[in-house]
Amino acid sequence: MRISSFTAGGKALYGAITEAGAVALSTEFPQWPTLYDVIAAGGFGRLVEAGRGRGVTHTDFTFDMVMPDARRILCVGVNFPNRNAEYKDGSAQPKHMSLFPRFASGFTGHDQPLIRPPENHTLDYEGEVAIVIGTAGRRIAAKDAYDHIAALTLCNEGTIRDWVRHAKFNVTQGKNWDRSGAMGPWLVPFSDPAQLDDARLQTRVNGELRQDDHLRNMMFPIREQIAYISTFMTLQPGDIIVTGTPTGAGARFDPPRYLVPGDVVEVSVVGIGTLRNTVDDEAP
Amino acid sequence: MRISSFTAGGKALYGAITEAGAVALSTEFPQWPTLYDVIAAGGFGRLVEAGRGRGVTHTDFTFDMVMPDARRILCVGVNFPNRNAEYKDGSAQPKHMSLFPRFASGFTGHDQPLIRPPENHTLDYEGEVAIVIGTAGRRIAAKDAYDHIAALTLCNEGTIRDWVRHAKFNVTQGKNWDRSGAMGPWLVPFSDPAQLDDARLQTRVNGELRQDDHLRNMMFPIREQIAYISTFMTLQPGDIIVTGTPTGAGARFDPPRYLVPGDVVEVSVVGIGTLRNTVDDEAP
Repeated sequence: MRISSFTAGGKALYGAITEAGAVALSTEFPQWPTLYDVIAAGGFGRLVEAGRGRGVTHTDFTFDMVMPDARRILCVGVNFPNRNAEYKDGSAQPKHMSLFPRFASGFTGHDQPLIRPPENHTLDYEGEVAIVIGTAGRRIAAKDAYDHIAALTLCNEGTIRDWVRHAKFNVTQGKNWDRSGAMGPWLVPFSDPAQLDDARLQTRVNGELRQDDHLRNMMFPIREQIAYISTFMTLQPGDIIVTGTPTGAGARFDPPRYLVPGDVVEVSVVGIGTLRNTVDDEAP
Repeated sequence: MRISSFTAGGKALYGAITEAGAVALSTEFPQWPTLYDVIAAGGFGRLVEAGRGRGVTHTDFTFDMVMPDARRILCVGVNFPNRNAEYKDGSAQPKHMSLFPRFASGFTGHDQPLIRPPENHTLDYEGEVAIVIGTAGRRIAAKDAYDHIAALTLCNEGTIRDWVRHAKFNVTQGKNWDRSGAMGPWLVPFSDPAQLDDARLQTRVNGELRQDDHLRNMMFPIREQIAYISTFMTLQPGDIIVTGTPTGAGARFDPPRYLVPGDVVEVSVVGIGTLRNTVDDEAP
């Protein structure tokens, strides 16, 4: 089952996605105006059930960011072997994970263009797996962490690289340009640890493989991410954690290989799907 | 006029605050379940009008975080003279402002305790003025920036200092402990540039003046904050910018003077009010 937000006939909807098209389900859940509301209210299981065996309602639709009104998105930085070494600053591997929030406005949906702004052209890709929390918790033990995940999706954690180090601390302004990244194409219910533990994450640019690693190689595994984050904040249903990108982003090439209009970026995990985006210059 | 979120009789409400008590107005605006919804929908002016000349509905109530479901809160770091020097790392004044998001869950309301967690006791105060955006805009010119502000409030941008530098980049985990900060006591409509340009910001701990500066001394003035942030993201009604704290936080004393249970912290600006909070250890 694949669940996403989408737009059809000028209306923002959510529902199931099949090979043949979209199955609008939001019309059946007026108490939950958005997919975020479904998950925040603990209704994701009901929504998935409602989508089983249903006929397509829309063949003409566009994907939106998978949860366009997601309230809290936390990203994990520098989380694969050799990625820390890529920084070439001689520092030892950090003891704790690096975390930074991104706003939902920084992401577009599947099959939509990433937007390169006129101010700076160092638009870069970062393919990642994102998890959606389904059950609240504080100080969650790592061994129990997977019990708190409702669904998985993919993220292109697109970045305006020059702006990441604009200021003394924090990557905020390089990570929050409007529609500079993407999330989707859909949510896949999480039911088996192997969906994460055996996942191989790949990013391609114009068909060329640029990032390729297994989630099991993470420096800070997803179970530990949930345990650590929930130490300082109560995780809530609908929270999203973007779990880190492998080596091979464009900034790490010499010279850097930033995205340009017309490029096609694909982030893939077997069993989740492929998040595909083009690149456009911002409309004047 | 003072507008806030509050709880009375077990119900979350919003409305006007007077010397005599609270005037519930949320019951008259069912289309806007929360104060954030009011502002996001451009209804703040209507709400203020509805509150004029009204009798108190509740004398027994508690303040909530002024907008408990605020979606996007951006904080400006290291923004007063000598504050950069406090870092003692020999670095020049940065060219751009440091920015970091905080989630609404990190803030409690006026007259509520800041929570010191068992994991770490380096709870510190930072008194700040926060602005609430009322009119959307992208690439807002500094000269027009004030036209986009709907209201002002105060923030104690409470921080678990040891966790700010837990990781290699970003202050996220030191800045997002549940209820480690506070925002309120209320929103004051913004109608005159002097409300900001002439504001003097003071923070007291147990009556002792710890922070005292004028907003006009900011390294990155509020007009420039709005211009810079709106370069990379479209500012939306309901967005909050926490504009920076003067020198004198507890961490900068030698030895540091962190908050302990029983302390009372007051953040004040004449014309806005005084945000007062006690400090409690987290309930076991």
